[in-house]
Amino acid sequence: MEHAADPSHPRYRSLLMRHRLEVAAKKGMLADSAMIAHGRGEAYDYLLGETTIPSAVVATQIALNALIQAEHPVLSVNGNVVALAGDEMLRLADKIGCPLEVNIFYRTPERMEALLSDLNERKERLGLDVDILGANPDAVIPGLKGPRAKCEAKGILRADAILVPLEDGDRCEALVAMGKTVIVIDLNPLSRSSQRGSITIVDELSRCLENMLEMNAEELPSVESYDHHQTLQDALNTIVNGMKNKFSEAKE
Amino acid sequence: MEHAADPSHPRYRSLLMRHRLEVAAKKGMLADSAMIAHGRGEAYDYLLGETTIPSAVVATQIALNALIQAEHPVLSVNGNVVALAGDEMLRLADKIGCPLEVNIFYRTPERMEALLSDLNERKERLGLDVDILGANPDAVIPGLKGPRAKCEAKGILRADAILVPLEDGDRCEALVAMGKTVIVIDLNPLSRSSQRGSITIVDELSRCLENMLEMNAEELPSVESYDHHQTLQDALNTIVNGMKNKFSEAKE
Repeated sequence: MEHAADPSHPRYRSLLMRHRLEVAAKKGMLADSAMIAHGRGEAYDYLLGETTIPSAVVATQIALNALIQAEHPVLSVNGNVVALAGDEMLRLADKIGCPLEVNIFYRTPERMEALLSDLNERKERLGLDVDILGANPDAVIPGLKGPRAKCEAKGILRADAILVPLEDGDRCEALVAMGKTVIVIDLNPLSRSSQRGSITIVDELSRCLENMLEMNAEELPSVESYDHHQTLQDALNTIVNGMKNKFSEAKE
Repeated sequence: MEHAADPSHPRYRSLLMRHRLEVAAKKGMLADSAMIAHGRGEAYDYLLGETTIPSAVVATQIALNALIQAEHPVLSVNGNVVALAGDEMLRLADKIGCPLEVNIFYRTPERMEALLSDLNERKERLGLDVDILGANPDAVIPGLKGPRAKCEAKGILRADAILVPLEDGDRCEALVAMGKTVIVIDLNPLSRSSQRGSITIVDELSRCLENMLEMNAEELPSVESYDHHQTLQDALNTIVNGMKNKFSEAKE
């Protein structure tokens, strides 16, 4: 796959993300469906204009506030999340002071091992003191069946607020049903995760996390000020208007 | 990757297409970016309602007519096309009585060999007498550089009408610049291929080809009746309205 090493290349960031996925695939970190899921995301990001829209900035601020205010916040990561933004997720866990838990849909011992060792290498390199959970699942998420239900009692099970980037709709709904504040990062405002999440950030993962890492924790809007419907509606409007504009430009 | 064997499963067709790509990937037929490209297509097909819209049916009829009326029609196939609908492309070449040429963007001897042998196996199994070109490139598409420009003089070079499903924008433009009637099959009405093609069918590849194979060649609308702008506008409208409707339903 082409990899533009020049950051001034207009597609640098998109190609960098693909490159990260390729590296992760070679390490056995990804499910077979990982690349297809990423392609779907690319399509929505293209429609969004590959930019963080203002309503997503606000949702990001509120989400960060919800995580900071929670008693037991947890960051849940799957294969694509570790591949695309493993460093940023660890830095965010460090900023919030919470554990990070590997929680994957297509759970196999090999993938779990690959993800945990990749995260531990990153943690060492970054010099961070973050609890990485997932190796010893001793609990299940109610309502889910099989390996995808597994989690840790001191991590996802007891969490009151949980960040689930690029999450499957079934699992998102199961976490919401447990009464948790479920924070979704998803490029498709129509997805079940986006719709069912407590707080949804319609943005590309690495952009969103970089924003979260730069935000001043002392100056965030209240969690109560979050308007779920308006946030999703705004993302949808941006996509719809973006399509119409792209179409008009293409005609010229 | 999950593979639903039951055709009544609502996602049967989508999972079948993923399964076909997996099989092709194992045979070395695909570029690294194949799965990501397919994911982008899935996103647009979801927005289209995973159905062939009426304006796409008309574009398909007109495209078939253009191929039948051409003096030297050719069907161009790349890795994803062979993987997703190799049989259907061979059947279409047989119906039209024209050659099929393997023409890939990331051209390597190994991928060419994998694609040509897969197509030859399919041809044998189907008992069809179709010329499969691409093994002996003796010409180049003007305006393109490197391996991606290679083609055969008796195939793509001399073609007056060419079907290019899932085609790269640069190559589509180069073929148009040669004065050919370029027929695009693409799920994104905003893509450069969709915009620049002579006739564009905004539809999922295997659905489109199945429709073409069933059409009565004697009863097709004239090529002159094709309205490029209206065809793309209609697909865009369907996507935009589909998004608004999905959003309203999700709220309920």
